[in-house]
Amino acid sequence: MNGLGAPGLGRLAMNQATIPKWTTEEAIAGCARAGYVALGLWRDRITEAGPARLGRLARGAGLQISSLCRGGWFCASDLAGRRARMEDNFRAVEEAAALGALTLVLVCGPAADNDLEAGRRDVADAIAELAEYAASARVPLAIEPLHPLYCGDRSVVVTLAQALQLAASASTGEVGVMLDSYHLWWDPELESGLGAAAGRVLGLQLADWIAPLPDPLNGRGMLGDGTIDLRRFLAGVDATGYRGPIEVEIFNPQVWALDPEETLRLVADRYLEHVA
Amino acid sequence: MNGLGAPGLGRLAMNQATIPKWTTEEAIAGCARAGYVALGLWRDRITEAGPARLGRLARGAGLQISSLCRGGWFCASDLAGRRARMEDNFRAVEEAAALGALTLVLVCGPAADNDLEAGRRDVADAIAELAEYAASARVPLAIEPLHPLYCGDRSVVVTLAQALQLAASASTGEVGVMLDSYHLWWDPELESGLGAAAGRVLGLQLADWIAPLPDPLNGRGMLGDGTIDLRRFLAGVDATGYRGPIEVEIFNPQVWALDPEETLRLVADRYLEHVA
Repeated sequence: MNGLGAPGLGRLAMNQATIPKWTTEEAIAGCARAGYVALGLWRDRITEAGPARLGRLARGAGLQISSLCRGGWFCASDLAGRRARMEDNFRAVEEAAALGALTLVLVCGPAADNDLEAGRRDVADAIAELAEYAASARVPLAIEPLHPLYCGDRSVVVTLAQALQLAASASTGEVGVMLDSYHLWWDPELESGLGAAAGRVLGLQLADWIAPLPDPLNGRGMLGDGTIDLRRFLAGVDATGYRGPIEVEIFNPQVWALDPEETLRLVADRYLEHVA
Repeated sequence: MNGLGAPGLGRLAMNQATIPKWTTEEAIAGCARAGYVALGLWRDRITEAGPARLGRLARGAGLQISSLCRGGWFCASDLAGRRARMEDNFRAVEEAAALGALTLVLVCGPAADNDLEAGRRDVADAIAELAEYAASARVPLAIEPLHPLYCGDRSVVVTLAQALQLAASASTGEVGVMLDSYHLWWDPELESGLGAAAGRVLGLQLADWIAPLPDPLNGRGMLGDGTIDLRRFLAGVDATGYRGPIEVEIFNPQVWALDPEETLRLVADRYLEHVA
């Protein structure tokens, strides 16, 4: 089966981390050619060509930039460190604006000095400050809850309920959440979280969960290779009213080894089989 | 510093999985000699000597058997499979009774056929059935929520709130929870969960969380080597009224490589420094 161009693909998007062999320009051209509607980008891959030029290139190819990864990493042991990180987040907002990205993704952690409670307070304060800057640039901020596996080294925000509470507490601008099946599928409160997420979902990413986990960082699964009921997950997200792009983001050396053209075909096939 | 025999050690217990070089008889003798108050055992390590004999041996040495690991693994694709697993759990209850163990630990999963919702229902049904058998044998059952990292291959119960709800829904016998710092530390609802856990805590285990995680299964950290505020965790557990043994359970090849005598000394030192 070759799913490319099939009618069910209408919302399918790619995240550039799934196809790292391509330059960003190649990824824009390749995803447009393959019928994907959008592409999620990473900050370290847009520096050379520049965000404004890449944004024009994508629009010219009929492709949305569904997300820019990533802002966040707010916490630091001292004030100077926290200021440096906030300045870097201001740059990320500017890049997202120049790209015309639908949202800037925030990875909210880790805590400084292993102080989880303080880290959670620091994250709330930082989001409130960044939200003002993002509002002036009209960039929606998407708080991404990560799997609790990353609580020590990446994100103190590990559940949808927690991300929604943070989003609701930011009084300025558009602050919402990025939902990723890999990070959220295990949560016994996922259904109630999705029930409370209407109007707050700014993006959606999919990867499967391979059990047992082959690698804590780069062991994410191709759609259909793991334990997640992706169709049920999407139905829950659909019920929030989110109608935007569905990015596929898979950190996995076996996927990275493929020819990106082949990855695009495989993802489209698996998407039709397991998601759409 | 050598913490053995120090006054703060009054509740310190060892789990045999931390010192696998020793036979169970050696572990009983060694832990008693080192001033530990209790030892947690594993089913596959009590078969040869037999649970009744080992229970007498421990009592004679002045050592409690703080837990038996583990019952559970209830789910199966068909009825015959589920019956076989329930029969095995009946055997586990009998072994815990013969040992005089303070509790039988239940690992509740994984779901059959990757059906998470069905798996959670199956677990609730199985615990209700097992609770009747355990009540007749006067064996308390401790539901252990595992880290969400294990949701696909070990346990569909991944939060304290979920474990407490299951425990409360079993109408017969004594059903409570086993708390393990490694599994629970990340949870933004941990404090409220502990607030609701009074009278339900049947055991306590400690290991630290190393970030990033070196290995999904055997990457647990020696006390003080990781990101968990163990003193805060213990204070939260103390507030539930639990006054029983505090087991140290560390799956880690570097710890396993040590002479068990050395492990007992190291754990006692770290316990005094980071926990007691």
